[in-house]
Amino acid sequence: MYRSHTCGELRASHINDKITLSGWVQKVRDKGFVVWIDLRDRYGITQLIFDQDRSSKELLERARSLGREFVVQVKGTVLERASKNPNIPTGEVELLVSELIVLNESLLPPFTIEDQTDGGDDIRMKYRYLDIRRNPVRNNLMFRHKVAMEVRNYLSNQGFIEVETPYLIKSTPEGARDFVVPSRMNAGQFYALPQSPQTFKQLLMVGGMDKYFQIVKCFRDEDLRADRQPEFTQIDCEMAFVEQENVLNVFEGLIKHLLKEIHQAKMDTFPRITYDEALQRYGNDKPDIRFGMEFCPLAPQGGSKYGFPVFDDAELVVGINVKGSANYTRKQIDELVNWVKRPQIGASGLIWIKYNTDGTVSSSVNKFFDEEGLRHLSTQMKAKPGDLMLIMAGNIDKTRTQLSALRMELATRLGLRKNNEFAPLWVVDFPLLELDGETGRYHAMHHPFTSPKPGQLELLETDPGAVKANAYDLVLNGNEIGGGSIRIHDRKTQETMFRHLGFTPEEAKDQFGFLMNAFEYGAPPHGGIAFGLDRLVAILGGQETIRDFIAFPKNNSGRDVMIDAPSYIDPAQLAELHLKLNKNEDKSS
Amino acid sequence: MYRSHTCGELRASHINDKITLSGWVQKVRDKGFVVWIDLRDRYGITQLIFDQDRSSKELLERARSLGREFVVQVKGTVLERASKNPNIPTGEVELLVSELIVLNESLLPPFTIEDQTDGGDDIRMKYRYLDIRRNPVRNNLMFRHKVAMEVRNYLSNQGFIEVETPYLIKSTPEGARDFVVPSRMNAGQFYALPQSPQTFKQLLMVGGMDKYFQIVKCFRDEDLRADRQPEFTQIDCEMAFVEQENVLNVFEGLIKHLLKEIHQAKMDTFPRITYDEALQRYGNDKPDIRFGMEFCPLAPQGGSKYGFPVFDDAELVVGINVKGSANYTRKQIDELVNWVKRPQIGASGLIWIKYNTDGTVSSSVNKFFDEEGLRHLSTQMKAKPGDLMLIMAGNIDKTRTQLSALRMELATRLGLRKNNEFAPLWVVDFPLLELDGETGRYHAMHHPFTSPKPGQLELLETDPGAVKANAYDLVLNGNEIGGGSIRIHDRKTQETMFRHLGFTPEEAKDQFGFLMNAFEYGAPPHGGIAFGLDRLVAILGGQETIRDFIAFPKNNSGRDVMIDAPSYIDPAQLAELHLKLNKNEDKSS
Repeated sequence: MYRSHTCGELRASHINDKITLSGWVQKVRDKGFVVWIDLRDRYGITQLIFDQDRSSKELLERARSLGREFVVQVKGTVLERASKNPNIPTGEVELLVSELIVLNESLLPPFTIEDQTDGGDDIRMKYRYLDIRRNPVRNNLMFRHKVAMEVRNYLSNQGFIEVETPYLIKSTPEGARDFVVPSRMNAGQFYALPQSPQTFKQLLMVGGMDKYFQIVKCFRDEDLRADRQPEFTQIDCEMAFVEQENVLNVFEGLIKHLLKEIHQAKMDTFPRITYDEALQRYGNDKPDIRFGMEFCPLAPQGGSKYGFPVFDDAELVVGINVKGSANYTRKQIDELVNWVKRPQIGASGLIWIKYNTDGTVSSSVNKFFDEEGLRHLSTQMKAKPGDLMLIMAGNIDKTRTQLSALRMELATRLGLRKNNEFAPLWVVDFPLLELDGETGRYHAMHHPFTSPKPGQLELLETDPGAVKANAYDLVLNGNEIGGGSIRIHDRKTQETMFRHLGFTPEEAKDQFGFLMNAFEYGAPPHGGIAFGLDRLVAILGGQETIRDFIAFPKNNSGRDVMIDAPSYIDPAQLAELHLKLNKNEDKSS
Repeated sequence: MYRSHTCGELRASHINDKITLSGWVQKVRDKGFVVWIDLRDRYGITQLIFDQDRSSKELLERARSLGREFVVQVKGTVLERASKNPNIPTGEVELLVSELIVLNESLLPPFTIEDQTDGGDDIRMKYRYLDIRRNPVRNNLMFRHKVAMEVRNYLSNQGFIEVETPYLIKSTPEGARDFVVPSRMNAGQFYALPQSPQTFKQLLMVGGMDKYFQIVKCFRDEDLRADRQPEFTQIDCEMAFVEQENVLNVFEGLIKHLLKEIHQAKMDTFPRITYDEALQRYGNDKPDIRFGMEFCPLAPQGGSKYGFPVFDDAELVVGINVKGSANYTRKQIDELVNWVKRPQIGASGLIWIKYNTDGTVSSSVNKFFDEEGLRHLSTQMKAKPGDLMLIMAGNIDKTRTQLSALRMELATRLGLRKNNEFAPLWVVDFPLLELDGETGRYHAMHHPFTSPKPGQLELLETDPGAVKANAYDLVLNGNEIGGGSIRIHDRKTQETMFRHLGFTPEEAKDQFGFLMNAFEYGAPPHGGIAFGLDRLVAILGGQETIRDFIAFPKNNSGRDVMIDAPSYIDPAQLAELHLKLNKNEDKSS
């Protein structure tokens, strides 16, 4: 038996007990006559003591020689500590060691195994098994487990059945790029790894499963932006005989359950805003509403002209009121102006108006606006003495995107985006289609299985861009954490949809014939939602990046640097799969 | 709102309530003046009634015209039934329909959606979404969900953390064939899909996760035998600082928990037998111990010779006692003899002795044995009047395999393998290596990470086949449902192991260098187990085949016939992956 207790377990009540611990050497403190060792495992840290009065010389010597991260087993007696440590649960006691066995030695770790490590990202990824020993990473993984368990408990209690859908499915050109898997038994053919179990969950609804969920890995072979992974985890859900309202209620319940179980937070009904309103008020469709600073569309006095060409020539003039920031110095404001002009944002400029605490108004456009003009703008932005107003103008979409970025940046700088505050909302009434500016073709904004709003099917023929969908996103703290829709459940509508997305009838049949066939055998109305678990867990954990909530993440080139994958494979293996590498790229032989 | 209640919910207490149901038309019974419809959903069946007194003519007409599997919504009033149906929970009431909306029509299904269907396997697979509507299939999937939830609850309560390990990993030639995934971003390189998360779970132990589990898909590209799937689900578990005894206790607890929660079965401590003993007593390493019929190795009287060449020339003479079957007719016995001679079994013959109820003894070897000789054999097999003894002789391994098959066949015929009886046992002390007769090379019996028994490392050099491992299987009703081992946790032993498996040091480093490196940074002793969820669920569900516990299984050629996967992909997609099809097999262009 390697241990009678864990390193997080001993309390004053154990004093005088003979016990056995196993764990890692966190720290050795050698004071000559006495050696203290912090012994660590997943559950905590226990202080070991060896001293010249009570320990043999040989034992003291061996304790002294232990290196960081050595794995040891110790037996001994629990004692009351002379100087207690109130910061750790085991701080009242220490273990006087009578027997020490080294279970395994350790080379010096390439970075320190402590909460604040000296290891950079690359080295941490290469030695991920050491990184996981650090409390912050391990706690994140344990937190993820807790969230997943709570999701399963909630959904299971609501009558949802977790059904495993296949990983080896069929490749379709729709959407993002598939990862494919060559078939050995079916020469020249390929499986694809699922980008989501979308069609399978719909088939489960056709199959009468009524309420389905699955926590499931999904795959997308896309060029990786920061904080994206080629494999990611989804909480995938679908319900039959539901309208949008039913879906929203059930999954609002899920998020409330998580916030309650994990943060003891009691939430009111989540706000709902339309996609159009989200763009107007926040400049994007996943607004962070932990703070205000809403967009104020501006209009000239009397409805005529501003007399300021930048405004008069713009599609949109819109401002935000940064409350209490009129004390920004000229230098600080210049820095903001430069910030929005950076290529990542790409604004041509930023106009500011200060409503000073002394009641005066100053601005960067004094040349074009007299005091009355500035006060007119200030009134529209509901500014009060002490407020700083920032205004942008130009093309609607670009201006919204740029001002939205500025709004988020300011909120971050002002500490308004608090990690321990949670502000969920539903964004509803998404457009069904979006126009690809380059190709002039319409894409499904959500996916091709999303149902148009009732009565809008005809509008598809005349004004496809105006058709709204029964589609919704759940947004939390400025992140889209879930999205879903009511689905099409009849063959004719689905065929119409595919036609508008540019599929020939043959293509539609070849790729999604099985789904359209299924719709002919009594498909019920149905709808669902999917949540990105990696992101959800990170946000619930109060962190920005998903990588440390994933045990073994890949880097931005899609590589696992720890195991060194992907890698070349044996030419014989390739031949069995009926494949050859393209000559100029064949580096394996 | 599509429904106020489900089709399984209405009781006498609902009488006179106005309610709304949605579901599928299971059956229409048209008696002219009255039409009854069974409306079905996942939760049950509710009887709808339309009659000429209380329903409009038009409504009656529309009810009459509904086809099987039409999806309808109905509103109406709950009435007490004139003739109650005690066989279904809703049998006391029926719904007098006032409003009928057809939500979707249905073509005539290709097979009947009933518990006993007329659909063959192929058509059921092609229309799996209809097959899932049938109670037996849907109940299996719901049962699987329940088992998985109970597994998670038990392990989570025991302090295990579910950690997701990656699906895009590195291909290794060890073990079964990998499915591989070409990388677009890393030209000419491939990921592999995991055959199991073995190395990752060991790295999690190195990482101090202490107790890990995961319910996870695994993949093997092997020629499919009946009831094998290219993708299958594993309950994968690992623990640090454990010996075999700790692992066995925890997972015996898991199986007990499942049997208690699912079958209200209270189990005693599971028996444990060694691998060698299992072969001696049952002829295989996954014995079904729901019944006896144990192997009796036979010896000649006085230790000399039988005087029967078949026995005297054999490595092994072994019999089973089929209790109470001395009344088998000559024809029945001939049939058994033919059964063991079939190519699938391949025995050269079968010797029988009857201990008749009148006390006489008869046999197929009267020529070679006198009555005393037969009685001597009978005594060794502890036969009593009325028993039938069956004996086989020859090469040890073959004879055991053949007699084991006969033992199982007889038990099946005699009804001794009861679906609702559960007889688990541990088989322990597996050999570390097994000799491949063809290549003369040793293979790891479990996998290359399994630890030899303490003190047997030296034996590896002198008699590799004799080395026993800290490896164990959990066997339930004649099926291996789980297997595991205590692992190697130091680099030197792991290197020794790879050398004995025929790896060069370079190969070992190239494929498993990351693991051996990890062992140098304080790897704790660890061990674990993995269960095949598909099989476990099928056995707990009292069924023989796994296919109907998988929502969307593949056929024996690894095809999903419903979605028609695998399939050809676009040549452009292939080019992006830096691949070409082998010319003579290129059918896609």
